[in-house]
Amino acid sequence: MKDSRPAPPLDPNLTLPCVILDRPQLADNIGSVARVMANFGLQELRLVNPRDGWPQDRAWAMSSGAHWPLEGVKVYDTVAEAVADLKTVYATTARPRETQLPIITPRQCADDAYALAQQHMPTGLLFGAERAGLETSDIALSHAIVTIPVDPHFHSLNLAQAVNIVLYEWRLKVMDAPNATFTQNMDEPAELKYLHGLYGHLEDELEKAGFFFPPEKKESMLRNLRVTLNRARMTEQEIRTWRGVVTALTKGRGRVLAKLAEMKADKDASEG
Amino acid sequence: MKDSRPAPPLDPNLTLPCVILDRPQLADNIGSVARVMANFGLQELRLVNPRDGWPQDRAWAMSSGAHWPLEGVKVYDTVAEAVADLKTVYATTARPRETQLPIITPRQCADDAYALAQQHMPTGLLFGAERAGLETSDIALSHAIVTIPVDPHFHSLNLAQAVNIVLYEWRLKVMDAPNATFTQNMDEPAELKYLHGLYGHLEDELEKAGFFFPPEKKESMLRNLRVTLNRARMTEQEIRTWRGVVTALTKGRGRVLAKLAEMKADKDASEG
Repeated sequence: MKDSRPAPPLDPNLTLPCVILDRPQLADNIGSVARVMANFGLQELRLVNPRDGWPQDRAWAMSSGAHWPLEGVKVYDTVAEAVADLKTVYATTARPRETQLPIITPRQCADDAYALAQQHMPTGLLFGAERAGLETSDIALSHAIVTIPVDPHFHSLNLAQAVNIVLYEWRLKVMDAPNATFTQNMDEPAELKYLHGLYGHLEDELEKAGFFFPPEKKESMLRNLRVTLNRARMTEQEIRTWRGVVTALTKGRGRVLAKLAEMKADKDASEG
Repeated sequence: MKDSRPAPPLDPNLTLPCVILDRPQLADNIGSVARVMANFGLQELRLVNPRDGWPQDRAWAMSSGAHWPLEGVKVYDTVAEAVADLKTVYATTARPRETQLPIITPRQCADDAYALAQQHMPTGLLFGAERAGLETSDIALSHAIVTIPVDPHFHSLNLAQAVNIVLYEWRLKVMDAPNATFTQNMDEPAELKYLHGLYGHLEDELEKAGFFFPPEKKESMLRNLRVTLNRARMTEQEIRTWRGVVTALTKGRGRVLAKLAEMKADKDASEG
């Protein structure tokens, strides 16, 4: 679902970092960056000297409806001007040149930027041009270098993908849920007595079917069946379904159809 | 720097997961996925029913030199076929439908897939089509649902960006691996084709037994049964046992005893 307005911030007490793209070449990438910002809850986009000028229709087309970062874009001539009102800048680059700045991971960047956001300090996440990356002089305007752990044999990371990862870590930090199991999707497993009921049912039917042969293997055969079902951690509803499966397989069509006819007759009678 | 060959794996003892794209629409995205795979050290790409056929020049153009995942692409007609030789499948989807599978984060996915990779178990990272996402029936072929924590107000994540995040977490896990250990108590789960064989067998017998009633519920009833069995992560031996259970319940005592008598006669004959 898309909305033409930014989502309410996850935590309204944070001063959100802005995203700064230095000399972006492709409007497609600017649009993709806007989309990623919307995915992860950031809003302010700054462009330094975009190669093909600004605005550009392709950016809107590629944003998949994330128009607000594009509508609000501010354009600057230099990185220095783009960061002038900020207090801390994190420069993402795959190949840090020699410098005396700390080199940190996207996760450390998120930790650090989050601490500043809580103190209402405006920060910026700076990304270089598609091929050229960041100039050494612009890196020198930053406070830390963020390096994404790409394979050194193939470190050409797409611009929007780099933004994606840095902003993903930001979002995790804000959610404070890197390891949280989100909405637990699964219903609670049933109390074991229900499972034991299914075991008993299955055992009876398999016994009748002559399944346990030779007889002295019966216990270990049963154990193996139980263990498989244990691992499935079934809900009460699922256990009922599997008891229905056992019944259906055992009694066959005739019995099930008879039962259905009976139920229908009851229903008709109660409605009649 | 680009290379036309895959980089040597960070840890040659790992069985790397493959990436599976279900019904990808845009060759651009397939190329971007190949690039991301190269960034994070994965190699095998599988496509299910790509909309515009395969191969497509745009994919190569967008891969930024990451040609090897594209050269090695295998194309399948269905998700079931694409996962048949794997042992565990992680389905990434933004909006998990109601299902009884565990919902995990990309980080948890990386932890889990890494443990299996150490044990040389082939796993797959499954991603849905650009707009449609994954079909419920294909999600039901999976063992866990991976959800990227995007803003619920704007959860339209680009396909390659979704792959990017899941693979980034994989890479972090592999890099961090020296600390990781894993004690393995269980036998290997079977390749999924064996499980699908059990599903088919069970479906046939339940169909004959008139279990699927009303008929329009059949698909969802089947899905629920499959998901329970998925969660059990059965070995080949366990699957054989359960096929025996289905047969025993269906054919009943007479048939099983006849079979046993036949086996005994064969044995006597061969020993006699």
